[in-house]
Amino acid sequence: MTLEQVSLNKAFGGEQGVWQHASAQTGTAMRFSVFVPDHKPGQKLPVLWYLSGLTCTHANVTEKGDYRRACARHGIIFVAPDTSPRGEGVADDEAYDLGQGAGFYVDASQAPWTPHFRMRAYIEQELPAILAGNFPVDLSRQGITGHSMGGHGALTIALRNPERFRSVSAFAPIVAPLQCPWGDKALTAYLGADRAAWRPYDAVALIEDGARLPALLVDQGEADNFLEGQLKTHLLEQACKTAGIPATIRMQPGYDHSYYFISSFMDDHIDWHAARLKAD
Amino acid sequence: MTLEQVSLNKAFGGEQGVWQHASAQTGTAMRFSVFVPDHKPGQKLPVLWYLSGLTCTHANVTEKGDYRRACARHGIIFVAPDTSPRGEGVADDEAYDLGQGAGFYVDASQAPWTPHFRMRAYIEQELPAILAGNFPVDLSRQGITGHSMGGHGALTIALRNPERFRSVSAFAPIVAPLQCPWGDKALTAYLGADRAAWRPYDAVALIEDGARLPALLVDQGEADNFLEGQLKTHLLEQACKTAGIPATIRMQPGYDHSYYFISSFMDDHIDWHAARLKAD
Repeated sequence: MTLEQVSLNKAFGGEQGVWQHASAQTGTAMRFSVFVPDHKPGQKLPVLWYLSGLTCTHANVTEKGDYRRACARHGIIFVAPDTSPRGEGVADDEAYDLGQGAGFYVDASQAPWTPHFRMRAYIEQELPAILAGNFPVDLSRQGITGHSMGGHGALTIALRNPERFRSVSAFAPIVAPLQCPWGDKALTAYLGADRAAWRPYDAVALIEDGARLPALLVDQGEADNFLEGQLKTHLLEQACKTAGIPATIRMQPGYDHSYYFISSFMDDHIDWHAARLKAD
Repeated sequence: MTLEQVSLNKAFGGEQGVWQHASAQTGTAMRFSVFVPDHKPGQKLPVLWYLSGLTCTHANVTEKGDYRRACARHGIIFVAPDTSPRGEGVADDEAYDLGQGAGFYVDASQAPWTPHFRMRAYIEQELPAILAGNFPVDLSRQGITGHSMGGHGALTIALRNPERFRSVSAFAPIVAPLQCPWGDKALTAYLGADRAAWRPYDAVALIEDGARLPALLVDQGEADNFLEGQLKTHLLEQACKTAGIPATIRMQPGYDHSYYFISSFMDDHIDWHAARLKAD
């Protein structure tokens, strides 16, 4: 596996890189960004994964996320993958919420999304190995967060892999794809009509089925246009309460679904992850 | 004058807006962004101007500048204008360093750049009045900064208007358009061949001709591709030394010309301006 450097810029004393590689899982060229803070030679650093939302690439949070100052202060590596396979030979849809830019962090079982749409395996299996081989990451100290579709990704990946993540948070996550139009459309397309096959890709269903998180931080804007119809934060709140998961779910008055919202609370999330990732 | 709201997003407890208006100076529709921190009713806040570099609009720093956290903390309004008039009826050039996106903060005297290219009058006269009429600004507390061509704009506007600005800084500024290819090309086009007419648009020449600043903070990346050929920071350092201007000019190892550099030092600049803007 060859990692090609797309760009590398010094920032906040560390290095913000964008990298490209041929993915075995998706069968396409995949890009991701990595911020590596200044560190001692040989030192390995905790890593925070950030999964992005619909229409995004690695670039949105890399440019607009305001995460580097806090990651530099705490000594945390920040990784931002793409949201789907891309390219001419990859299936797509005219809508923004299906196909390229809308991988929903699933492994598709349905044509035409097979064989490329394997974002679950890419994030869970392939990319951690690439990080371990190329960056000074301490994989015993991983946290995960994300926004909207990426919040869904962060929650479901963490719920399915409790041994892997010390800390989990989300910004305006889709909490229950089984119960919203975005999820219904995407999971029907990627996984087929059998809704039982969707449950590993639904945070609320996973919690109902017994999966647990050690703790959870969620921020959600009250002026978010998608709150009522798609995100339905209250379903996660109820599921965590019923399951006894200690969840801090903060409704933020006046905030919308944009990176202006995300960046406003990024410091809080990184501080929250740092407290867990750096604990002995 | 009607101010049209292009967008308004809650961010860091305040509001990040983008506004458009018909400019009397440029004869075009002009856009600018304004971040207004949370404040008490009736309270007026200091204002920091940020002038952008070649190819930029208001959007680059608004998205990538990482300034909102520090401005919210200090209670400072942040204003980012566009870099030139734009539109179908406005003269342009195929090159990135002339015409639209490259106004150089001058009032052009030469065709085809007259009558629209009046960025000096726009920034010095028209926009302050618009701010005063529409935002809670305390115009007795203004600071100015900028990047590259916008650093040139910040320095020259501050040197020509010493009564107006309490604080001045720059990121990787063009310090002497008279002595670099960017300046030579642009000022020949906008102002004609008589180089005496260029001196009000050259920070080093203005200082040589007697203009002064109370103090100055400059950050400059040592890995900036434009340092040697265009920016020539040492000329400003020499001019300040000769003139007795207390200048803190910091060469930053490894940093390039990008917003990764700018955002890395934005907090330092805002802290520096805040100390001067908020002093009695």
